[in-house]
Amino acid sequence: MLMYRRLLAASAVFALLSGAAHAQDVRTAEALRDKALLDRTAWDITEDLTTSIGPRVVGSPAMERAKDWAVAKFKALGFTNIKVEEFAKPSWTRGEESAQLVAPYPMKLDIVGLGRTVSTPPGGIEAEVALFRTYAEMIAAPEGSLKGKIAVITQPMVKAQDGSGYGVAGISRRAGPVEAAKRGAVALLIRSVSTSDSTVPHTGMTAFGDQVVTIPAAAMGVPEAEQLERLAKKGPLRIKLKLASTTDPNDVAWNISGDIKGSEKPDEVIVIGGHLDSWDVGTGALDDATGIGITTAAAKLIGDLPKHPKRTIRVVMWGSEESGGSSEAYLAAHKDEVSKIVLAGESDSGADRIYSLKLPAGAAKHPIATTAANVLAPLKIYVNQQPAAHGGADIAGLESAGVPSIELEQDASRYFDYHHTADDTLNKVDPLQLAQNVAAWTSLIYLVADSDIDFRALKPAGAAATH
Amino acid sequence: MLMYRRLLAASAVFALLSGAAHAQDVRTAEALRDKALLDRTAWDITEDLTTSIGPRVVGSPAMERAKDWAVAKFKALGFTNIKVEEFAKPSWTRGEESAQLVAPYPMKLDIVGLGRTVSTPPGGIEAEVALFRTYAEMIAAPEGSLKGKIAVITQPMVKAQDGSGYGVAGISRRAGPVEAAKRGAVALLIRSVSTSDSTVPHTGMTAFGDQVVTIPAAAMGVPEAEQLERLAKKGPLRIKLKLASTTDPNDVAWNISGDIKGSEKPDEVIVIGGHLDSWDVGTGALDDATGIGITTAAAKLIGDLPKHPKRTIRVVMWGSEESGGSSEAYLAAHKDEVSKIVLAGESDSGADRIYSLKLPAGAAKHPIATTAANVLAPLKIYVNQQPAAHGGADIAGLESAGVPSIELEQDASRYFDYHHTADDTLNKVDPLQLAQNVAAWTSLIYLVADSDIDFRALKPAGAAATH
Repeated sequence: MLMYRRLLAASAVFALLSGAAHAQDVRTAEALRDKALLDRTAWDITEDLTTSIGPRVVGSPAMERAKDWAVAKFKALGFTNIKVEEFAKPSWTRGEESAQLVAPYPMKLDIVGLGRTVSTPPGGIEAEVALFRTYAEMIAAPEGSLKGKIAVITQPMVKAQDGSGYGVAGISRRAGPVEAAKRGAVALLIRSVSTSDSTVPHTGMTAFGDQVVTIPAAAMGVPEAEQLERLAKKGPLRIKLKLASTTDPNDVAWNISGDIKGSEKPDEVIVIGGHLDSWDVGTGALDDATGIGITTAAAKLIGDLPKHPKRTIRVVMWGSEESGGSSEAYLAAHKDEVSKIVLAGESDSGADRIYSLKLPAGAAKHPIATTAANVLAPLKIYVNQQPAAHGGADIAGLESAGVPSIELEQDASRYFDYHHTADDTLNKVDPLQLAQNVAAWTSLIYLVADSDIDFRALKPAGAAATH
Repeated sequence: MLMYRRLLAASAVFALLSGAAHAQDVRTAEALRDKALLDRTAWDITEDLTTSIGPRVVGSPAMERAKDWAVAKFKALGFTNIKVEEFAKPSWTRGEESAQLVAPYPMKLDIVGLGRTVSTPPGGIEAEVALFRTYAEMIAAPEGSLKGKIAVITQPMVKAQDGSGYGVAGISRRAGPVEAAKRGAVALLIRSVSTSDSTVPHTGMTAFGDQVVTIPAAAMGVPEAEQLERLAKKGPLRIKLKLASTTDPNDVAWNISGDIKGSEKPDEVIVIGGHLDSWDVGTGALDDATGIGITTAAAKLIGDLPKHPKRTIRVVMWGSEESGGSSEAYLAAHKDEVSKIVLAGESDSGADRIYSLKLPAGAAKHPIATTAANVLAPLKIYVNQQPAAHGGADIAGLESAGVPSIELEQDASRYFDYHHTADDTLNKVDPLQLAQNVAAWTSLIYLVADSDIDFRALKPAGAAATH
């Protein structure tokens, strides 16, 4: 901690000179940061949510227990103005699933149905395989050319610190089923959108929005995909796939929030949070119990101060990120308040260390950037010259309505090893890196909450209102 | 390769001075070693066995295909005296398996039945859990105290380079079911004997020899075991377990062998090999397609020499290691030949690099040790002062009959992450480390095969005939 104290003194002086923030604010932010590094609130929240509730898929009894857990947690930690905001959300519930290689020889394949997939007939679908090594290869196949076949896409995902491999490889999952159906396929099986070498398959939503998927779609483990690639070189493959699921078009979900009320300008609100729902296959530790833990702990640590900062800090535990809906619901419910939401941020890429801060457009040259850089430097976080583009799926609605957002970019190198799998469990969370996340959120959010900074006013001329 | 050439020259001189081996033999051993580092035979064998045959459990159609594959492979690689030696081996075949946490809330548990486990009734067994954090804790429970309960043991396995954590943690699997039944349990669920943090469960035989297991027994993933430990602190747990399997008491297995015939003393035989069978859940890449690949490639490289070494090198692809039987069957079939088997060795700990050579008792002070040390040094392998104790499960029969054995100890740090799981697949094999294994086996076996060394004569007085 000695190192931190020295840096604290130096950066407080710097802040005074730059006029970025009151020296006292910087000192408080730094004290919060250092306290957070030794605080176990985030870990306790993460452990409790994953253990007491377990998997939390929208529409499940567990999600209802999670809602009550959230309210109790906000109360226990001293939050006020606790709200449970219900919204309509059709749910999808997984049933029995299995797949086997049938030819050239029988072998079980570890698979998981994609979110929102339709079921196969009860006896399953057995068909010859049309294997494509990339999504683009399948797109190049003419309409009707996959008639009666199970399309298989084996495109791997590239590991990258910023998680940028996800968008590229993820298209097989997002658009694959619709595109395979167009070409006549009776089902689609993709290599999991994964950076691991594991057999544990990755689920995730397919066909967002109004798209209708008409064929069953599932993901298989990485070794299975590579095995199919090798076998396909030797001769034709046949696969049998069984998927079952049920849906409830009249289900509901909830955004749950709690406030640390501002001491001077309580109507100015900073919205932070993570999402409470998870996929059904793991306990949603990295996705996104840790996001709940990090942001709730950060607000709680600020709330424990003798005097709250000027502005209100609101933690929203988003109720339906995985299958969408939280973001639009919150915007609809808070339309009148949007202009008073001064900043939004979401923690939703696991719990490995934060390495970069992206501020709202126009803020990189503002003194807040220098103050933040000084406060975050001991955590080994730099201030990115690129502005925040997408702060998180659940705040996309607020962003589209003009709310400025931040990104505290987490190292996603390991995140997509476990994302949307049965292996997204507490033992993948590193408590020290988790604490580094809390320290960053706590100190940064405090600085903004106790300031008068208006990020909207900093936006460069010509910047679009939406990202 | 320059580094190797220099070392070659230096160690050839050393060998001459020590009288350990003819300088020409050392040069040939070193040339073989360096060739092996760039040879792809072991990789090709490993890829072909895991891809063309897949999982190879005793009694399966795949095992029969593996037998034919082995004969064809020996023929293609120039082996002679190819033999298929059948022996009686009851088989056990896995059926449908599942487990759920029932209380405090429903959650799927990833499990795998232990080899030889009995089935549950078709509807499964549901019972309250008696959780023990170690095997010793369960043993301390009095007889009858687990009546009507599902015993759960959550003892973790320690990661160690020499794999020594396996014996300690493995007792839950080996003896757990019998001991839990004695205490009245209706089923046993253990934390996988695993060094990974994965949900993928590890199978493996339970109750070796004549022991009869009367209760169903399975292993669960690591996160599941840790989740149960945390939940057990909060209140009672209930689990539902379904296991199904069939057995065939009249099944058979095969040891398959091929020779590189000795040029001067063909009746003196060195037996090396790996095991052809695997568990049913993965493709048995590390356990033990790589052992087949390493030892077959080593013998083949020696067989490609213009002149074969003096003694015969025999590769045995053992046909039933996982559920036992190969070792006894080979000894019974080769009783009359045992005195002419001058050395035995098995590769069966994956394909990560070899770090230590253990020679037969008494050989550490023999000049062969110095020669071996010099030849293996560039591969970063030292000659252990401890003698070989157990060269492998399949050569235990030969060892018990007085055949000297070697151990080329592989780094097992990663091995028990994947051992006996659906994740034991080709993508866990590192081709460079695999080649280092081949280089070690090739050069060492050549040195012994072209020598007159009689390891039996070196055995210190008083050393037991059996290990």
